[in-house]
Amino acid sequence: MTGALVLRNVRPWGADATDVLMADGAIVGIAPGLDAGEAPQLDGGGALLVPSLVDAHMHLDKTLWGQPWQAHRAGPSREARIAADLEMRLLMQDSIAERAGALVCQAISMGTGHIRSHVDVEPELGLKHVDALLAVREAFADRIDIQLIAFPQFGLITNPGTAAVMAGALDAGVEVVGGIDPSSIDGDRAGQLDTVFGLADKKAAMIDIHLHEMGDEGALSMEMICERTRALGMAGRVAISHAFCLGSVDAARRGRLINALAEAGVAIITYAPGASPVPPVKDLHKAGVIVAVGSDGVRDTWTPYGNADMLARAMMLAYRSGFRRDVDIELALRVVAEGGAQVLGLAAHELKAGSPADLMAVPAETVAEAVCCHPAERLVLKGGRVIFDSLLSNPPVPSLSLNE
Amino acid sequence: MTGALVLRNVRPWGADATDVLMADGAIVGIAPGLDAGEAPQLDGGGALLVPSLVDAHMHLDKTLWGQPWQAHRAGPSREARIAADLEMRLLMQDSIAERAGALVCQAISMGTGHIRSHVDVEPELGLKHVDALLAVREAFADRIDIQLIAFPQFGLITNPGTAAVMAGALDAGVEVVGGIDPSSIDGDRAGQLDTVFGLADKKAAMIDIHLHEMGDEGALSMEMICERTRALGMAGRVAISHAFCLGSVDAARRGRLINALAEAGVAIITYAPGASPVPPVKDLHKAGVIVAVGSDGVRDTWTPYGNADMLARAMMLAYRSGFRRDVDIELALRVVAEGGAQVLGLAAHELKAGSPADLMAVPAETVAEAVCCHPAERLVLKGGRVIFDSLLSNPPVPSLSLNE
Repeated sequence: MTGALVLRNVRPWGADATDVLMADGAIVGIAPGLDAGEAPQLDGGGALLVPSLVDAHMHLDKTLWGQPWQAHRAGPSREARIAADLEMRLLMQDSIAERAGALVCQAISMGTGHIRSHVDVEPELGLKHVDALLAVREAFADRIDIQLIAFPQFGLITNPGTAAVMAGALDAGVEVVGGIDPSSIDGDRAGQLDTVFGLADKKAAMIDIHLHEMGDEGALSMEMICERTRALGMAGRVAISHAFCLGSVDAARRGRLINALAEAGVAIITYAPGASPVPPVKDLHKAGVIVAVGSDGVRDTWTPYGNADMLARAMMLAYRSGFRRDVDIELALRVVAEGGAQVLGLAAHELKAGSPADLMAVPAETVAEAVCCHPAERLVLKGGRVIFDSLLSNPPVPSLSLNE
Repeated sequence: MTGALVLRNVRPWGADATDVLMADGAIVGIAPGLDAGEAPQLDGGGALLVPSLVDAHMHLDKTLWGQPWQAHRAGPSREARIAADLEMRLLMQDSIAERAGALVCQAISMGTGHIRSHVDVEPELGLKHVDALLAVREAFADRIDIQLIAFPQFGLITNPGTAAVMAGALDAGVEVVGGIDPSSIDGDRAGQLDTVFGLADKKAAMIDIHLHEMGDEGALSMEMICERTRALGMAGRVAISHAFCLGSVDAARRGRLINALAEAGVAIITYAPGASPVPPVKDLHKAGVIVAVGSDGVRDTWTPYGNADMLARAMMLAYRSGFRRDVDIELALRVVAEGGAQVLGLAAHELKAGSPADLMAVPAETVAEAVCCHPAERLVLKGGRVIFDSLLSNPPVPSLSLNE
């Protein structure tokens, strides 16, 4: 065993205190009073232990994290935000690694172990954003896993040449094919979706499509995504992000959509929006649809909110869903950790022997308390190694910086 | 001048750095490079300065703050939560001062200078909760102002004898007459409202009515509240809390309701709910309706959420309202500080000479950043005296306790 460590006196998902033995980057065993031989020991002080959290929807290339405050400059519509994005990107593309790196540090310090990030691609940009985020991924590889999505923010059919750049992104190491509002952005549902699914099929990639479309418009797009997923046998490899339409159609239509998602094996990723409809997490979960959660934009050209804390995001999801009972609030965190792991295709991401020793401990009695209070103090382990600690150290270790 | 203090290098509402001279509990002057004579000086380090925040809707007697985590035990409806409340109250009434005191300490440490709290009254309880909160108010009088509302949580018309206890509460020092859902709880709009307004008129008290009723039901109640406010000349002394109906009627009806509120001088208090409609803050503000913000329940028998931080609550209001631009996000904090002061009837609560020196400083460049990030570090002054400091002291001063 190399790099062995035993973390004593922690409470997995709020259960009774136990010990976790780690070695070779993985969990070796979990039991009270474990004989850990010569392994170094750490007393967790009864903190609540969960697997490291999964942020299943970020836009690392757009963040302004670590920069001076910048007033939001876009108009009130989504189209205005896309236009502002286009205007900003030339000013911002030289600092992608710096800005994204600062946000990745913040995410690590909050206990996020896995990020799935969209990255803008289109002909004029080429792979500039992709290359920057591939470098960030490399720089932080020992502390966090980053999965990337080639994202046609500025349209796919309406922006010719984008599909070729997306293919290039996949060849360069991007794992997921993105899409966005095939009807309202591209005005060509079949055209965009056939391109997206064709590319994913050819490159054995996953799919993650932004769907802001509301009501019937979104429902039709969702149905077509489910159809293509079934036809290509891509169950478990396709996700729809946002899915506002699930909260803006009537109950009968919503029920049919949920069944279609379950049958096709299409997952839903939400950021718990403030002013758009939140997908019905409990109904989706009950129907067997995998639900994951992401930050979406974190203090960027799209939104001034967010701090990459997925415990706080779980609180927002629970609060927006009207959850009050502990069991429901716990579901909000389960989908963050476990749903996120499923969407990202992680083979094992549980608190048991054999899973990677990617862990987060937080001072709370119950999972519900951890979510509702989301205390700032965290102990974060990656591959069995403490990589951030503001819980046990006093004073806390300094913040992560890009240069360490 | 007694108790003079000069706070240097702070930025009022994010403006350029300046100095604030305080004496005799009030602001004496605000200007850069103030000559403060022999007065002690404090360097604010460029922190953003706002008036102390107003929490315009709490339930101090119901909180479980400072207690071990307690799983939410009520069923999913409002009626179930009222029933659970009835069941809990006998177990909890001996610890009101302890629980409420713990929450008041937390509120002070977050920069709240004024609380308006509902307190349950009904025949069986008598004034037990009122007496406990009057004692809490007295104990914290030098650090926070607490205004109380005699709240008929368990019905007024349907729970005979309640009005008499409410009258007794007013005689004991409670300032505001409460009410709740005159149609859905009491089934007698005119009956409840006539009792509430009659009592307030007789005792020269203010009015604050919980209105959860949705759609038409709530709109009718709101119209009747406006009518009575006009008839009795009570403009500026009546508030409606929650007002979910404003977000659940069509645009034309909403416009008429907003005009009625503005004409009658009836204020709206919101807690930025997660799963119920949020009142349209910008439309209300534009029409001249005073808007204030409160925590509502903080980790209590009704809800597991909240931490009495009105900066975080302003963030929730802005997030739920879809605000992205700095000017809109600043409005969310303006209604917390200024709208709250107006609803509570505070004569002066601004950053200018003559106002009480009730201040809060927080590390942020702009008001929007203070709201979006709501940093935990705060410097809190009441009557020109530093009563909490986790901003300038390092390490922070210990948390407030009941016994100091």
